[in-house]
Amino acid sequence: MAISAAEVKVLREQTGQGMMECKRALEEAGGDAEKAVEILRKKGFAMAEKRAGRAAAQGRIHSYIHHNGRVGVLIEVNCETDFVAKNLEFQTFLNDLCLHICAAAPLAVRPEEVPENLVETEKRIAREQVEGKKPDNIIEKIVEGKLKKWYAECVLLEQPYVKDDQRTVQDLLTEQIAKIGENIVIKRFARFEIGETESD
Amino acid sequence: MAISAAEVKVLREQTGQGMMECKRALEEAGGDAEKAVEILRKKGFAMAEKRAGRAAAQGRIHSYIHHNGRVGVLIEVNCETDFVAKNLEFQTFLNDLCLHICAAAPLAVRPEEVPENLVETEKRIAREQVEGKKPDNIIEKIVEGKLKKWYAECVLLEQPYVKDDQRTVQDLLTEQIAKIGENIVIKRFARFEIGETESD
Repeated sequence: MAISAAEVKVLREQTGQGMMECKRALEEAGGDAEKAVEILRKKGFAMAEKRAGRAAAQGRIHSYIHHNGRVGVLIEVNCETDFVAKNLEFQTFLNDLCLHICAAAPLAVRPEEVPENLVETEKRIAREQVEGKKPDNIIEKIVEGKLKKWYAECVLLEQPYVKDDQRTVQDLLTEQIAKIGENIVIKRFARFEIGETESD
Repeated sequence: MAISAAEVKVLREQTGQGMMECKRALEEAGGDAEKAVEILRKKGFAMAEKRAGRAAAQGRIHSYIHHNGRVGVLIEVNCETDFVAKNLEFQTFLNDLCLHICAAAPLAVRPEEVPENLVETEKRIAREQVEGKKPDNIIEKIVEGKLKKWYAECVLLEQPYVKDDQRTVQDLLTEQIAKIGENIVIKRFARFEIGETESD
């Protein structure tokens, strides 16, 4: 049966799970939202939110260099045990993240980690675009809206995943937490590209 | 013939070349300093200084992950042409640098790139160690001396090279510039280690 985007959206907001997982659960439940939540719970996805609070002190450093040697990514992803850090599922996840970062060039993992000067510049541009054209009392709201949209473009967890743009990287992460059964934290990354900074 | 450390030091200061290169040149010159400079010049080492001013807009991103997966390094090194960036000599140099950074954990490439708050802390500690014990007018000199020593420990270019502690990383770089015949700039690096930052 056909599941509407609105139904998927409601289930996602309710469970915090990935778009595809919610769609599949709804299909399996024949469109019954309550049943779909149960299905997700059984699959362990509903546990992910809980797990997200647990300490993640283990993990792995992973890197990816693009074949031309001109772009490279280094990433730290934490989990709870060294056992998980070593497994293939986790390694594949790290590799997918590196490939995504290489292609999508995010500025930071989380909105609060975007450098303050870039946020200020973005706010200023957004404000200048509407100043004088809109009443003062709604300008700040428009600026906030534009900023939110900008974060979705440049913040890793909010970016559409490059291999499947129906999911965000946060969706991918939540799925991994559910699948692996441990809290996972994308701690930090570095992305270097030849020519992106002024040469000495 | 035996060459004294003092003779090598003088030649190094005169030419800016690596310790081993200077020692070899002096040996070859039978201890004659002028002849040794000539030998270095013929080998192209004296050209390195000149090359260091040229634009380095090409280059490669390189990475190294320690076998335990808990330490990783990403580096950008620039050179003048893509031809050099591709060659094996250059790649080997990048790998040696990554291994060094992994083991020696520098804080920055150059002294001026060490985060200001770390420099301030180091200055404060150095000042506290001598305050009250020495006349005020020489305290600043002592602090500067201690800071210089600290830079030699934590700044990549000033660190003794891990594979040969008779040379600094700057010596290694200068030798590469001479050998390859292009200006080379160690632009930046990232070094991630599991557990070095507080976990979320």
